Amino acid sequence: MGVRSINAGGYAVHIGAGLRHEFAARIAASAPAHTYAVITDDNVGPHYAAPLIDALGAHGTVSSHLVTAGEENKTRTSWARLTDELLDAGCARDTTVVALGGGVVGDLAGFVAATFMRGVPVVQCPTSLLAMIDASLGGKTGVDTHAGKNLVGAFHAPAAVLADVEVLATLPLEQRRSGLAEAIKHGIIADAAYLASIDERIDALVAGDAGATLDVVARSVEIKVTVVNADVRERGQRKTLNFGHTLGHAIEQATGYALLHGECVAIGMVLEAMLAERIGVAASGTVREITRILERAGLPTKYPATLSAADVLKATRHDKKTRAGTVEYALPMRVGAMAENNGAWSVAVGDADVRAVLV
Amino acid sequence: MGVRSINAGGYAVHIGAGLRHEFAARIAASAPAHTYAVITDDNVGPHYAAPLIDALGAHGTVSSHLVTAGEENKTRTSWARLTDELLDAGCARDTTVVALGGGVVGDLAGFVAATFMRGVPVVQCPTSLLAMIDASLGGKTGVDTHAGKNLVGAFHAPAAVLADVEVLATLPLEQRRSGLAEAIKHGIIADAAYLASIDERIDALVAGDAGATLDVVARSVEIKVTVVNADVRERGQRKTLNFGHTLGHAIEQATGYALLHGECVAIGMVLEAMLAERIGVAASGTVREITRILERAGLPTKYPATLSAADVLKATRHDKKTRAGTVEYALPMRVGAMAENNGAWSVAVGDADVRAVLV
Repeated sequence: MGVRSINAGGYAVHIGAGLRHEFAARIAASAPAHTYAVITDDNVGPHYAAPLIDALGAHGTVSSHLVTAGEENKTRTSWARLTDELLDAGCARDTTVVALGGGVVGDLAGFVAATFMRGVPVVQCPTSLLAMIDASLGGKTGVDTHAGKNLVGAFHAPAAVLADVEVLATLPLEQRRSGLAEAIKHGIIADAAYLASIDERIDALVAGDAGATLDVVARSVEIKVTVVNADVRERGQRKTLNFGHTLGHAIEQATGYALLHGECVAIGMVLEAMLAERIGVAASGTVREITRILERAGLPTKYPATLSAADVLKATRHDKKTRAGTVEYALPMRVGAMAENNGAWSVAVGDADVRAVLV
Repeated sequence: MGVRSINAGGYAVHIGAGLRHEFAARIAASAPAHTYAVITDDNVGPHYAAPLIDALGAHGTVSSHLVTAGEENKTRTSWARLTDELLDAGCARDTTVVALGGGVVGDLAGFVAATFMRGVPVVQCPTSLLAMIDASLGGKTGVDTHAGKNLVGAFHAPAAVLADVEVLATLPLEQRRSGLAEAIKHGIIADAAYLASIDERIDALVAGDAGATLDVVARSVEIKVTVVNADVRERGQRKTLNFGHTLGHAIEQATGYALLHGECVAIGMVLEAMLAERIGVAASGTVREITRILERAGLPTKYPATLSAADVLKATRHDKKTRAGTVEYALPMRVGAMAENNGAWSVAVGDADVRAVLV
């Protein structure tokens, strides 16, 4: 299948089946360093860390650092501990951080790199579909606080992103479904034909078929980097990537991270599409179309009965997309196109409308 | 005396006597926001925070946040607490952070701003001479760890820097002397005539005379921003600003921050000049000239007898300027000019030579 390389503007994204065997050489080529600090978690590490650490040894000193898997560990405490571990291991300005894992590892290791000695390079080696097409791209790094997700962080573009689609075959099924939620989001916000192609191959994608997945990762990466590069600091168009995330994050937080990120985004997309139809932004039928493909991917489309509308509304209060006391939503006009709203790419929506879709 | 405004490349530095009465209007003009979060310490706050908070109230919601004065509080713990306070106060992406205080407040508040929701604007209102001519400029923000100073941080340029030289008159004498160490450094690294002008007016400067101080702040700011803008990411020429700081930081750390930063830099400059003469980089007489002006400013020039050479050497190990196992020093050729060393602007020096000047 070969390696697909996408210029993300300042760094390259390389995607391939079996690419992990080239990770060390590609890391050393894109961010040569005296010391390499590999950060991984206890799910991914046992499978893929040892060969990478061995191979990196040919290029410099290597230290390895483990975090416990799970969003609940994406904290300032983990960040401080990892930073201290790097210092103890003798890491300095000439260190490259390698993030080997899913979105949690990528965000956390990225924030360690962003703030270590005021910034050292990070190479993202995402091992989940979600991380390959979303978290590893665009330079957003950060950690959660009690008040919400990603409230503390920095923009820190990776030196490179290396994705091996073969590793997805060993992911739990629900992780692949969760990742597909973001791919479906890319179709909804930017490319109806891409959405249709996901729909056609949904069974192969859910099963983790390498060929189908490679096509999806490549197209999703193209969409994400195009949108990000049009608006790195998220003043306008980049906000479209937040579709499904304002309510998705709120649900994720209100349920104490009991659901997977992609599951929350799936529910969030349905709710935000309902909001868009309700206030007249989206064409009628948009909700139905979005719901149908998410159901085909085996993703949830209704928010948990254990939550009240008040819980969800409260959790939107600390969303970073809050401006001047109202909550801003990136909303679709139809599948394949988002509401531009005169360059704002988001629409302020009052609590009453949000409550109405949360029934 | 009027207001001197210096374009620092992307932001302006405004310096004046009595400028504090215009802080609120200038903050709102340079970084308009929905919420202003004023971060200050328990030395500066009681003198200057209340009028600023009152005046800012005309431009938005204001929250105020206090840190205990002192380098020992420039920690990740303080940073996390301030961040949580901002979240609790309802701060969001449309918040501007105001740093009202010396270098510790500026570095800490700057790091809070750099990492709050992945970055919100900060306006630096430095209240010490040191902060006016050094810490508030150039976008370096950060905190200390057990392993050393400023090991964790980010580059985050201020939206503006506002300096009122009148507030320096109420600073303790030793704080003004400490600030003069950095002004003297600027003369040594870039401008022998400026160094001579400091020498001529040293008594007025030590006394906190507003007119003399305004001239010094303006010229030091010019030198610092010129050097920083030539090399924002500190790959080359910016390293010259580290003159005196490699050993200065090591002494500061080894003494547990018992000495003021400028006192440590003064000692560091003498030691590093000795190093430069010893290895043949600096002209003979450089140490004598540097020592003489520092003594006239009432600054220490010898490292504390309580420290051993081994203590100081050990503390250089975690310096960010460490590369590939050796320690890099920015060294003078003579007063007014630094060693370029083929564009590196630093020289790798072995422990034996460092130990020889630490006798």
